[in-house]
Amino acid sequence: MVRYSTVSFLSDFGHADEFVGVVHSVVRSIAPDVAVVDITHGIARHDVRAGALALARSVQYLCPGVVLAVVDPGVGSERRAVAIEVGGGASVLVGPDNGLLASAVAMVGGADRAAELANPEYQLPRIGSTFDGRDVFGPAAAHIAAGVDLAELGPAVDPAVLRPGLLPIIGVEDGVLVVEVLWTDHYGNVQLNIGPEDLTEWGDPVTVVVAGTRRETVARRQAYGEIGVGEVGAVIDSSGLVSLAVNGGSAAEYLGVNAGEEVRIERADAPPGQSTSVTLGRRGET
Amino acid sequence: MVRYSTVSFLSDFGHADEFVGVVHSVVRSIAPDVAVVDITHGIARHDVRAGALALARSVQYLCPGVVLAVVDPGVGSERRAVAIEVGGGASVLVGPDNGLLASAVAMVGGADRAAELANPEYQLPRIGSTFDGRDVFGPAAAHIAAGVDLAELGPAVDPAVLRPGLLPIIGVEDGVLVVEVLWTDHYGNVQLNIGPEDLTEWGDPVTVVVAGTRRETVARRQAYGEIGVGEVGAVIDSSGLVSLAVNGGSAAEYLGVNAGEEVRIERADAPPGQSTSVTLGRRGET
Amino acid sequence: MVRYSTVSFLSDFGHADEFVGVVHSVVRSIAPDVAVVDITHGIARHDVRAGALALARSVQYLCPGVVLAVVDPGVGSERRAVAIEVGGGASVLVGPDNGLLASAVAMVGGADRAAELANPEYQLPRIGSTFDGRDVFGPAAAHIAAGVDLAELGPAVDPAVLRPGLLPIIGVEDGVLVVEVLWTDHYGNVQLNIGPEDLTEWGDPVTVVVAGTRRETVARRQAYGEIGVGEVGAVIDSSGLVSLAVNGGSAAEYLGVNAGEEVRIERADAPPGQSTSVTLGRRGET
Repeated sequence: MVRYSTVSFLSDFGHADEFVGVVHSVVRSIAPDVAVVDITHGIARHDVRAGALALARSVQYLCPGVVLAVVDPGVGSERRAVAIEVGGGASVLVGPDNGLLASAVAMVGGADRAAELANPEYQLPRIGSTFDGRDVFGPAAAHIAAGVDLAELGPAVDPAVLRPGLLPIIGVEDGVLVVEVLWTDHYGNVQLNIGPEDLTEWGDPVTVVVAGTRRETVARRQAYGEIGVGEVGAVIDSSGLVSLAVNGGSAAEYLGVNAGEEVRIERADAPPGQSTSVTLGRRGET
Repeated sequence: MVRYSTVSFLSDFGHADEFVGVVHSVVRSIAPDVAVVDITHGIARHDVRAGALALARSVQYLCPGVVLAVVDPGVGSERRAVAIEVGGGASVLVGPDNGLLASAVAMVGGADRAAELANPEYQLPRIGSTFDGRDVFGPAAAHIAAGVDLAELGPAVDPAVLRPGLLPIIGVEDGVLVVEVLWTDHYGNVQLNIGPEDLTEWGDPVTVVVAGTRRETVARRQAYGEIGVGEVGAVIDSSGLVSLAVNGGSAAEYLGVNAGEEVRIERADAPPGQSTSVTLGRRGET
Repeated sequence: MVRYSTVSFLSDFGHADEFVGVVHSVVRSIAPDVAVVDITHGIARHDVRAGALALARSVQYLCPGVVLAVVDPGVGSERRAVAIEVGGGASVLVGPDNGLLASAVAMVGGADRAAELANPEYQLPRIGSTFDGRDVFGPAAAHIAAGVDLAELGPAVDPAVLRPGLLPIIGVEDGVLVVEVLWTDHYGNVQLNIGPEDLTEWGDPVTVVVAGTRRETVARRQAYGEIGVGEVGAVIDSSGLVSLAVNGGSAAEYLGVNAGEEVRIERADAPPGQSTSVTLGRRGET
């Protein structure tokens, strides 16, 4: 029997209500010796993509054990509830099969096996059908931590049919690098879906184009602290990806970009008019 | 000597300041082996009613042990600080005697006995008189968890004189069901103070009237996921009560209702003019 | 070998992202038996002063052990990462040497010894250079809790060269007491950098002057609950300092003051015109 001492927990439950606390209590009632570590509960409501990315950024730092993730716009509908074993049994991810777990599973080497959470013995009796974190996912996470095997939780699910995550695409159009904002964090840093190597052939600095407007000439910097005042810099962030940042302020606010939006990157010496026909936006004018 | 291994903690302290962390530290200093599980600290400032309702919704899921609850607009004034034993000693609730604990106590079968937290030996020396969570309630919770009996904390209080909770009232006026919004959650779901059985005689769908305006025709749905796009549905929520919800959005925002406000429910085939004299609000026009 | 069972953790990471959870996970991976107690993560972004004050208010209530504090606008730049032993080894504070730890260290008797966190053996391999909480400070806190001595973490730092905190100054100008707002809390209470004894010679009530305007006549009150409706009162708060408060509302909002700003206090019988030349602001008119 495999037991785990940690349940790492991510959701979009927020902190205004008792949702997080009730799930903690349910887990502790079933598995009193297991620690619940909150990854975050600040994922935007129902934003599966944002939850999947946060989980993927975190997963390599989590304690081996159970990972409980709930961002579930389809609660009560036909989407499957699943547990996915990874790393030769080192960890088990529990959550809805809606793509939330997919990137994290891929990051740690893919699914070894999976089960549908169908066995009512390992669920709480449902009142209404609207809080699966409390009634289905939390209890499953706790029982798995306490030694229940996936086979007892419900029928095996072929890992190949689990819902995949969405992969943001990097493209090149007319000599312009087209990328996507993956994440804008609490500090306003703007994470792009490219690594530093993807920038190499575009020179240093590059021009960042937002919504058709050449906004900034951006140079690479070693650290946030090395970005000059009033400058937008590109750093390699803590995920190993390129983030745009400003010194002591919010690049997301300054550039006016949000997660999921497109950003274009040009050579700084690109001829005028190539990808924009509007006036440059400059700090102070925007 | 009865010991408890869990202190479940609810407050209106928020997360901007160190209040929650200081209480955790105080409890851990007194009772190092006790786990503190946060229910929520997002109760609106000084909103005793909201705190009482959150506690009542949570209480049946909490681990047996001590429940520490602090929403206390009267800190430093004459309201009593109390500990209330319930469930034949299964749990003890600690907090101000201002109605905050009343509904939760009632949910678990009523008070067996109670004590006023008057013994300074089980308090921290007070600096000022403004942080009873740190100086009075937290220490009491920790000492109770560590085995101190209620009788040592202060004089017994007759459970019959504890301040009762406010009970929202359901009424029928002129053939209209008058209900109250108990809670609008993080997702914008609007919990009403009625169970599904209270709706039976009003038919399906019903008409929801807000502030004198017939706002929506609302049908019952099995789950949030079964509510159509652009529709307001009525589901049985995770408390077993009726909640109004919209698909992928906030019903509270859409309907413009807040906790504590009145909502009226009519038969969908009610004659015009009965409870409203103003134009219907429709999505897109509001 | 000295081990500690608690890491108390303060930062400006907020709760929207996974930063706090990742640091928890890193600490638990290194030191599985150590409890991480969150003091707060709601410090305003990059606000070292606010973080230092929150830590100073909390420090006497924290469990002996490791204190991990990260508010670090200079991450990746040349500021030192340090561990500071205090109280004859009772506790060790870990964080950036930017003044964040200084007031707390002073509150508990000053530094016994300090070390720079320079040894990569006790750090995670860095990806990028932007998350020292995860890669440097968190691991150091965990290793110290697990028994690693400061001398192993890096070269000793003379406590005398650690960056001091900023001390807000109290002054008297033309018969007016000039003080500073240290903190406005979640409830809107306005903490000043004076104790009750500093007010003695100014009489009771006093006049509070904000931005050149005589705003309020403020009397001393024993508790928030004793402040009358529509009144601004001065209480001795839970830090032993003078706080301005209103009954059931936010004094910060009502007075329009923020942390770091100046407030002037006059005798209530001061002659007109002395410190103000503008009309009095009164509730209802502002």
